[in-house]
Amino acid sequence: MALIQYISRIQFDFGAVSLLAEEIARLGLKRPLLVTDKGVAAAGILDRVLDAAKPSQPVVYKGTTENPTEQSLLACLDLWAEQGCDGLIALGGGSPIDLSKAVALLASHGGNLADYNVKTGGSEKIGKVAPQIAIPTAAGTGAEIGRACVMSLLDGSKMVAVNLNMVADTIICDPELTLTLPASLTAATGIDAFSHGVEAAMSTMVNPPAEAIALDCVARAAKWLPVAVQDGQNRQARWEMMMAALEGGMCLQKGLGGAHAMGTPLGELHLHHGRLIGVLLPHIVRFNAEVAQAAQARIRTAAAVPDEMALEDWITDFTRSLGLPTTLGEMGVPTDILPQIATRAEADHLTLTNPRKPIMADYLKMLQSAM
Amino acid sequence: MALIQYISRIQFDFGAVSLLAEEIARLGLKRPLLVTDKGVAAAGILDRVLDAAKPSQPVVYKGTTENPTEQSLLACLDLWAEQGCDGLIALGGGSPIDLSKAVALLASHGGNLADYNVKTGGSEKIGKVAPQIAIPTAAGTGAEIGRACVMSLLDGSKMVAVNLNMVADTIICDPELTLTLPASLTAATGIDAFSHGVEAAMSTMVNPPAEAIALDCVARAAKWLPVAVQDGQNRQARWEMMMAALEGGMCLQKGLGGAHAMGTPLGELHLHHGRLIGVLLPHIVRFNAEVAQAAQARIRTAAAVPDEMALEDWITDFTRSLGLPTTLGEMGVPTDILPQIATRAEADHLTLTNPRKPIMADYLKMLQSAM
Repeated sequence: MALIQYISRIQFDFGAVSLLAEEIARLGLKRPLLVTDKGVAAAGILDRVLDAAKPSQPVVYKGTTENPTEQSLLACLDLWAEQGCDGLIALGGGSPIDLSKAVALLASHGGNLADYNVKTGGSEKIGKVAPQIAIPTAAGTGAEIGRACVMSLLDGSKMVAVNLNMVADTIICDPELTLTLPASLTAATGIDAFSHGVEAAMSTMVNPPAEAIALDCVARAAKWLPVAVQDGQNRQARWEMMMAALEGGMCLQKGLGGAHAMGTPLGELHLHHGRLIGVLLPHIVRFNAEVAQAAQARIRTAAAVPDEMALEDWITDFTRSLGLPTTLGEMGVPTDILPQIATRAEADHLTLTNPRKPIMADYLKMLQSAM
Repeated sequence: MALIQYISRIQFDFGAVSLLAEEIARLGLKRPLLVTDKGVAAAGILDRVLDAAKPSQPVVYKGTTENPTEQSLLACLDLWAEQGCDGLIALGGGSPIDLSKAVALLASHGGNLADYNVKTGGSEKIGKVAPQIAIPTAAGTGAEIGRACVMSLLDGSKMVAVNLNMVADTIICDPELTLTLPASLTAATGIDAFSHGVEAAMSTMVNPPAEAIALDCVARAAKWLPVAVQDGQNRQARWEMMMAALEGGMCLQKGLGGAHAMGTPLGELHLHHGRLIGVLLPHIVRFNAEVAQAAQARIRTAAAVPDEMALEDWITDFTRSLGLPTTLGEMGVPTDILPQIATRAEADHLTLTNPRKPIMADYLKMLQSAM
C-alpha cells in the first residue's frame, strides 16, 4: 500500500478502499454524507464502499448529474442539515468530487455558491472547509487531488471556485474500482490524464517538481493506456493508469494550455471532455512546436516517440489507436460555432500559460484543421 | 517567481526574500521569533532578511549550534514568552530550521521535548504547531521542506520528532543567499542533496511522484553541482542546486537507505554529514546493484552516466571531482569504531527501505572498503 503525501494524504493500491473505515475514524467523522451518482450505484461500487465504511453509516446522495448543479448542492445541504452530517465522502468521477467540494465549502462557510466565484475574487475568502474523503472510480481527470470545483448555477451559468483549502483531506485510489470501466471510457478518460501531463510539461510556469511529475504521467499513460483499453482486467495497467491520472492532477498546479482552453467551451456542447482533448492536443502541440522545443523533447523521451516522427503525429496515431475520434467533425461539432469557441479560448485563463500565446485567429485555424 | 505547493507553500527564485514581509502578513504574525546562527549573522544575511521583514521587527535568536540542543530550545521558549512571540522564522541550514520546528512544537503543545520522540510514539501526538517560515541559506539537506527535527536533549542523547504538522507553512528559497557559500561547503552540502535523490530513487517504498522528483534532483545535481562548485557566482547553477536540494527534501517521503543509515552514527564523530554521505554512497550503490537494477538504470539515465561505467565508480569520480573526500580514512574515522557503526546502521530505520537488507556484517564490509 502506498501512502503518498503531496498536497494531501493519498492511500493508493488495490484494496485501498478497505481503509475507508480507518480514514473516516482518522478524520473523526460521525455522520458523513456520501455524494455519488446513479451509474456508480448501478455498477455495485457504492455497495462495496458502504460496506468498507462500516461501522459508519453514511447518508447517501445519488443525484449528481454530469455537470454538477447548484440544485444538487442545495439538496445535499438539506440532507446535511437534516441528518446532522459532519463530513463528506465523494465517490465517482469528476462530478461527484466537484459537488462534494461545493458542499464542504457551503456547509462550513454559508452564503451562496456565487459568492466564491474565482472570477470575482470570491475564492480568496475560502478557508478550511468541512472534511472530505475522495474516492475516484475512473482514471482521468485527477479531480481527486484538485483544488477547483466547477458548478452550474441555478441561472444556468457555470462558475468555478478554486482554493487549496478545498482539496480533499484524504484520497483513496483503488484501481480495483476501475476494472469494470468499459474500454471506450477507459480511453476517453485516460487520454485526459495523458493530456494533463503534456500540457503541464509545456506550460510557461516554473515548477520543476510538477514538471517531473507531469513527465512521469506522460510516460506512464503512453505505455499503459493502450494496455488498459485492450484488456480492462489487466491489473497492472489499471494501477498505472490510476497513478497517471493522479499525477496528471498533481501537476495541474503548473498550469495547462491551449487544448484545454478550446476544450472547455466545446464541452458545453455536451461532448466528452477527454474525447475533445484527444482531438485538440496534437493541434496545440504543432502550434507550440517552435517555442517549446525543450519541453517537447522531454515529452518525446517520456512517451518514447520514434525520432523520425513528429510529436503531434504520434499523438494523433496514439489517440486513433485507442479507438477515440481524431477530428471534431466525427464528434458532430458544427463548423459555424468555431469562431465563438476561438474567441472564448483566447479569453480563457489557460491561454496565459500556453508557451506560445494564441490569439483568436490562431485558435480558429487550429479548430478548423481539427474539423 | 515560482510558487510551488507540494506539502507546503514555496516561494522560489532570486529575490524571493523580498516577499518575506508579505508572507509574515499572510500568516498574520505580529511578533515572529527569528532563529538563526552566528555564521549567518556574520555573513550579513541576517541583516538582509531583517530588512525584508519590515515593518515587522522579529525577535532574534542567534545561538543555534551545529547540532541544535534542548538548551537552545529553552532559551528560545523564554524569549517567546517574554516577548509575546506568535510565530517563527528559521534562517540558515538544517540546524536553525530544526530548532525552529522544536520551538513551534513546544510553544504550541507545551510539555518536554522528549515527550514527542518518534521512538516512543510521542510524535503521533503532534497536532498543528505554531506558524513557521523557513529560509534556507544553503542547498543541501532539504530540511526546509522536512517534517522531522533532530535535537540533542539536556542529557546529551539525541531525539527525533517527526510529523507532517511540523513542516513550515511557508518556505522562501532565494538562491541569492547561497552565492557567497564557499566552494567546499557548496560541494559538501550539494552532494547531500544528490544522495537524497539517489537513495530515495532506490528505496523500496512505492511513491511514483516522489520517484519522479528524486530523479529530477539527481539530474539537476549531476549537471549543476560541478558548476556551482567551480563558479559560486554562477546564478543558474545556484538556482538549480537550490532546486535540487528542495527536490531532495521533497522526495524523502519515499525513504532513504544504507548510506544514510551508516552516515547518521558516523556523524556523531562531528564529521560533516554531506562529506560522509559522499564517501558512503558508492558503497551502498554497489551493494544494492543486483536487486535495484531498474532504479539504478533510471539513476544512470538521469545523471547521464556513460554506458561503460559502473554507477558506483561514476559517483566516486563525481565526488572526487568536487574536491570531496572519497574515503573514511581521509576524514579521520578510526578503524576500531566500525563494528559499532555497523551495528547501529543495521538497527537504523533507514535500513528498512534499502532495497537489499544489509545485516551488520554487510555494513561492516562496506565501511571497511570505504576506509
